[in-house]
Amino acid sequence: MNKAQLLECHRKIQDYVHWTPVLKSRLLDEQSGASLFFKCENFQRMGAFKMRGAVHAILKLSPEQQSKGVVTHSSGNFAQAVSLAAKSIGIEAHIVMPQNAPQVKKNAVRDYGGKIYESGNHILDRERMADEIAAKTGASFLHPSNDLDVILGQGTAAVELLKDQADLDILLAPVGGGGLIAGTALAAHFLGKTGCISIGAEPMEADDAYRSLISGKIEINETSNTIADGLRTNLGDINFPIIQKYVDQILRVEEDEIIAAMRLIWERMKIIIEPSCAVPFAAVLKNKELFKDKKVGIVLSGGNVDLSKLPF
Amino acid sequence: MNKAQLLECHRKIQDYVHWTPVLKSRLLDEQSGASLFFKCENFQRMGAFKMRGAVHAILKLSPEQQSKGVVTHSSGNFAQAVSLAAKSIGIEAHIVMPQNAPQVKKNAVRDYGGKIYESGNHILDRERMADEIAAKTGASFLHPSNDLDVILGQGTAAVELLKDQADLDILLAPVGGGGLIAGTALAAHFLGKTGCISIGAEPMEADDAYRSLISGKIEINETSNTIADGLRTNLGDINFPIIQKYVDQILRVEEDEIIAAMRLIWERMKIIIEPSCAVPFAAVLKNKELFKDKKVGIVLSGGNVDLSKLPF
Repeated sequence: MNKAQLLECHRKIQDYVHWTPVLKSRLLDEQSGASLFFKCENFQRMGAFKMRGAVHAILKLSPEQQSKGVVTHSSGNFAQAVSLAAKSIGIEAHIVMPQNAPQVKKNAVRDYGGKIYESGNHILDRERMADEIAAKTGASFLHPSNDLDVILGQGTAAVELLKDQADLDILLAPVGGGGLIAGTALAAHFLGKTGCISIGAEPMEADDAYRSLISGKIEINETSNTIADGLRTNLGDINFPIIQKYVDQILRVEEDEIIAAMRLIWERMKIIIEPSCAVPFAAVLKNKELFKDKKVGIVLSGGNVDLSKLPF
Repeated sequence: MNKAQLLECHRKIQDYVHWTPVLKSRLLDEQSGASLFFKCENFQRMGAFKMRGAVHAILKLSPEQQSKGVVTHSSGNFAQAVSLAAKSIGIEAHIVMPQNAPQVKKNAVRDYGGKIYESGNHILDRERMADEIAAKTGASFLHPSNDLDVILGQGTAAVELLKDQADLDILLAPVGGGGLIAGTALAAHFLGKTGCISIGAEPMEADDAYRSLISGKIEINETSNTIADGLRTNLGDINFPIIQKYVDQILRVEEDEIIAAMRLIWERMKIIIEPSCAVPFAAVLKNKELFKDKKVGIVLSGGNVDLSKLPF
């Protein structure tokens, strides 16, 4: 990877994604002791940064590949992202979702034009069905995080953040499958000012990235009992080496810290964010000395929450 | 009132308020059939447009008046607005609040530096206590909506909206005490393009403005059983003539329409708005023919909600 690739990726996807705004809050600056710049991917199309990676991965396919469509399996934001990205680009999207996926998520995928296939609830069921669809239709399989084009796409949120605010000292992103933090780290390294670092944040309850960086190999979440549902997945072999090389450290936070940080952003900034994207802000509040007087960019990854099931 | 007064007011308050962003939503445009421009006063300092009027009213006082402080009675956003405006300008704010006002609102006023006085729960108790404080301290009384300087201040939200988007056909604002809609109507008249009109929106359950425009005199809300708590108050003798002269019409909506509109904005735009500011958007959805293919500016008045008491 290099700077040119990242900038080319950003140029490529621009017609399909929003250049989301960067918000500040005087009150949260006071509470944290840092100067915080929130990159609002909750305002992104379909409500999350995943749109970026999905668009880029599809645009990188050849015209012949595109004509055969794309396939993925997901019960979350990536299913919606691939559906809307494919529709925007004008190709077909096959989405494998487990039977027990919430109806509201199935509806969202359908609204965005994705073709839904119901699989068994185990991850192996989903993978098998996606493979079958790929074999039958010739559709290209898209992975939500362990794919270089997806990683570059996710990194464009930080590219924009740094174009809007060049003098950031630290970029912060949550760590789930690892695509967003890997892309963010590349942006910090290639486009940030000298000394700009990137830090990942994850729930104590799903701290595979923290443990992986210590052990030097990909560790698995045996359980992942966290409200931050977007961060329950494991790292992959493509994003992990990037994280090892470019991410400064991973900070971990408790569940009550995530909920308190989420509530603070809702109440003070008047914006709706998912629990997952409260995790980096919770890490700032928990490690004030580390961020004191620093200019800190935080990628707010998405805003797709079920309003009927709020934690407060 | 004239155009120069409105622009001078906007110039005056600029150092104390945010020039709030204007957001669009492709999905809500599709659902409404209009092109909607949401002026986000929920992102205003202290979370509502009332900051504008409070700042302007205080700045219009003489230095001698300012040195004696200001006094108001309110259990809502205006109490917070006067507290923060006074603190920002460097003067004292006396805030009379009924004993039964929620503790969270008292805390907010205190955080913003207001000095709280607890009165009995009847409106007459509050007024009497405010009069006493004014007599004793020499503080100037500020009314939340029936005051020309407050009206001009509230109108600056629409001034900014029209500076950012000059070609709007219609400006929409909710109607509570009447300050915001009066100021918005002045802005539409003096700064909008030729033919630009303003329309008010209010709950069926507190439709005093609708009835007042028909009867030609100020009508009272006998009851005001609406979730839009900011719109329960009555018009005043200073804003009503402005509304009569400059507001095109008042649209009314039901409670379930307010809640549905509020939820739609939360879910699709990922921003937190009070029930009160869902009322104009609910009116657009209810009267699609009226707004079809029009460019419509909507003042989202504020975002101060109790997250523990949501209607969904």
